[in-house]
Amino acid sequence: MSENGFILHGAAVYSENRERIISMDEAWIVCVDGVSRGVFDHFPEEYAGLEVEDYWDKLIVPGFTDLHVHAPQYQFRGTGMDMELLGWLNTIVFPEERRYKDLEYAESSYDQFIEDLFVGPTTRAAIFGTADVESTLLLMDMLEDTGLVTCVGKVNMDRNVPEYYCETAEQSLEDTITFVEGALAEEYERTMPIITPRFTVSCSRKLMQGLGEIAKEYNLPVQSHLSENLTEIRMVQELEPDASFYGETYEKTGLFGLPSDIRPEREECPGYGDTIMAHCVWSPKEEIALMKKNGVFIAHCPESNMNLTSGAAPASLYLDEGLRIGLGTDLGAGASPCLFDTMKAALTSSKLRKRFYDENIRSLDFSDVFYMATLGGGEFFGKVGSFEEGYEFDAVVLDDFSLSTMNEYGAAERMERLMYLGDDRNVVGKYVRGQKLY
Amino acid sequence: MSENGFILHGAAVYSENRERIISMDEAWIVCVDGVSRGVFDHFPEEYAGLEVEDYWDKLIVPGFTDLHVHAPQYQFRGTGMDMELLGWLNTIVFPEERRYKDLEYAESSYDQFIEDLFVGPTTRAAIFGTADVESTLLLMDMLEDTGLVTCVGKVNMDRNVPEYYCETAEQSLEDTITFVEGALAEEYERTMPIITPRFTVSCSRKLMQGLGEIAKEYNLPVQSHLSENLTEIRMVQELEPDASFYGETYEKTGLFGLPSDIRPEREECPGYGDTIMAHCVWSPKEEIALMKKNGVFIAHCPESNMNLTSGAAPASLYLDEGLRIGLGTDLGAGASPCLFDTMKAALTSSKLRKRFYDENIRSLDFSDVFYMATLGGGEFFGKVGSFEEGYEFDAVVLDDFSLSTMNEYGAAERMERLMYLGDDRNVVGKYVRGQKLY
Repeated sequence: MSENGFILHGAAVYSENRERIISMDEAWIVCVDGVSRGVFDHFPEEYAGLEVEDYWDKLIVPGFTDLHVHAPQYQFRGTGMDMELLGWLNTIVFPEERRYKDLEYAESSYDQFIEDLFVGPTTRAAIFGTADVESTLLLMDMLEDTGLVTCVGKVNMDRNVPEYYCETAEQSLEDTITFVEGALAEEYERTMPIITPRFTVSCSRKLMQGLGEIAKEYNLPVQSHLSENLTEIRMVQELEPDASFYGETYEKTGLFGLPSDIRPEREECPGYGDTIMAHCVWSPKEEIALMKKNGVFIAHCPESNMNLTSGAAPASLYLDEGLRIGLGTDLGAGASPCLFDTMKAALTSSKLRKRFYDENIRSLDFSDVFYMATLGGGEFFGKVGSFEEGYEFDAVVLDDFSLSTMNEYGAAERMERLMYLGDDRNVVGKYVRGQKLY
Repeated sequence: MSENGFILHGAAVYSENRERIISMDEAWIVCVDGVSRGVFDHFPEEYAGLEVEDYWDKLIVPGFTDLHVHAPQYQFRGTGMDMELLGWLNTIVFPEERRYKDLEYAESSYDQFIEDLFVGPTTRAAIFGTADVESTLLLMDMLEDTGLVTCVGKVNMDRNVPEYYCETAEQSLEDTITFVEGALAEEYERTMPIITPRFTVSCSRKLMQGLGEIAKEYNLPVQSHLSENLTEIRMVQELEPDASFYGETYEKTGLFGLPSDIRPEREECPGYGDTIMAHCVWSPKEEIALMKKNGVFIAHCPESNMNLTSGAAPASLYLDEGLRIGLGTDLGAGASPCLFDTMKAALTSSKLRKRFYDENIRSLDFSDVFYMATLGGGEFFGKVGSFEEGYEFDAVVLDDFSLSTMNEYGAAERMERLMYLGDDRNVVGKYVRGQKLY
């Protein structure tokens, strides 16, 4: 037996699959070579040689995955939320993102962003940079040092963007290759490039086609935005009249996942065919069917969708129909970098959606949002987001002592309370792929 | 000039009235004899004799008012949120409230509740106790010691409540008199009794009439719930067929405020005719008109209304039509005791309401929710909730240093960021009626 492992002892909560949450008031979780060997309700004698890290009455949960976050929107989070998507992009987002050509600014700003990511419950993230290559590579460098596992993209856009921040298709593609090759040359252990067209509104067909080819050639995943806002959707219809729905503009250009029968099996995740589409608030039936067929991951961003008056995605429908779905903070349209807040927003917005819009779509419950925050989003990175045997060992240790109550709660209810009442103060330990970060 | 005062120096934000928010990056706020003498953009020489408390780059705002909070629901906050109102009351609330007959339990529990209230931005609150007299008087005793200003009510209910927690009308009225006289005998400086029928569903006409008489006789304010949940509203229609809308059941029994022409002018607030109705999510036009006529305060409880799938009140309509309205955390249907979270919930739920339910009712903006949290709710307690000259001096000092950003923001935007990103950690000072609590 390998000695390269350890056992965590404490209360544990994790999703076995999307239907079943496991709650254990006392658990021993075994990690060997960065991978879980399973969870035991008694001390596992077969691993007696491993050191036990004793967290006693603390709660141990899988690391959380933030499937959609904009690093260069960190500075203005929590302001400007009285606008909707397109006005907000032009007034607040683009001028700010343009500043990242200044590497000194980029470094100071990304430093603050990364600090927040580090102290919260997130262990994995899919991150948007800016259109600028240098500062996006810098962001990857900085992230690699944290121990977190991330995908990072240089953003592309060649239309409907103010001149000061707009690229040509040619330049954008050339820069993307520079970015990808620069990133790959670093041979990072835990930071990988991801193809990142901003959204169809700001990407010509030519640009998107080129990006699809790059994704395929370099075996890279893709992330973008889809069906977020009603005005945006109308704009896509006008720009791309031959697409019968928004998602088809990505599908036609090789940027919308792959059907499972032709999606490559792989050791290393993610790769070509793995795609994240953020929002999907207003996806029509055909789009939903295609996302299911192509294994597209939905990044459900409920705080952002409320803040920008976009609406609320039918997340329970996506879950119940077997689509892949995780949560995104969507900084800076989401204010909070902490996925506890995203989970809460997913619950509350699903309830208002049910009451005000569609009684037939059930609201989410705690186990749904816990699943999305851990296993649902983690799946984008491979076997990630659970303590089931064989999963990469990402764990977060939570101390709920400060959340006073005289009631005795089981582990799952303690996690529910942490979600409602806790914040980064309650995150007291973090492991990624078996490496202890703190 | 009296020497019994001081000057606070720092950035300041406050509402002058419901239309206008004042943001000053540098301000001197003068307090004499517990009352504001106004805010100056330079050192006010006429008060040169007063000591200056220098908060430098910190933010000073009026104390926040929590217009609706259930102290005995503190223990289970953040759990059980997958139910709607009536099921939740029977399954979670009533069994818990029943425990407060045990004074030791009550003391330990209220101690935790009060600690949370104390460390957050709240300086005034209208609080529900339980049906039990002794423990509700104990709660008042404990609150008096904090320095916060509060109204506290013994809850009444004589129908549609499990037998173990149900009163008879006679006993309920008798206990209410015992409670009121017990509370008044203490001659508290800042803690007063308030008449508290739980809601029409659980109060017979006879009980409500008796309570209306007690309110009048003892010159007491009233708090209750109104038009929160669709099933509740249908139940009221069945129980009270001669009322043409829910609010009329309170109006008929002297529990629904008073028209301004006969509402007594008073030095001491609140008193008879001052009424808080929590929720008002589904109030019909006639009910809204009567609340306006009678000066009823609406306690808008957006987090609670989302958690229990009640909906979202048309708060901007109430504001624009000139109704009195403040915010309530509504612990434990609201999870967070911190009004920052309530403000955020008010914003996000108003946006989803607009997108999903009624495009014609505008969503709230930051200055609306800041107004409701301070001046809107504060008005229930008299001249409270602003730094305008003549207002009782409640102030909260906020430190936003931890909310990293490289942008320079004005005072109002800093408060907006504190609301989105801050928590009780950021509350570093508190004054009530000119008394410094910390």
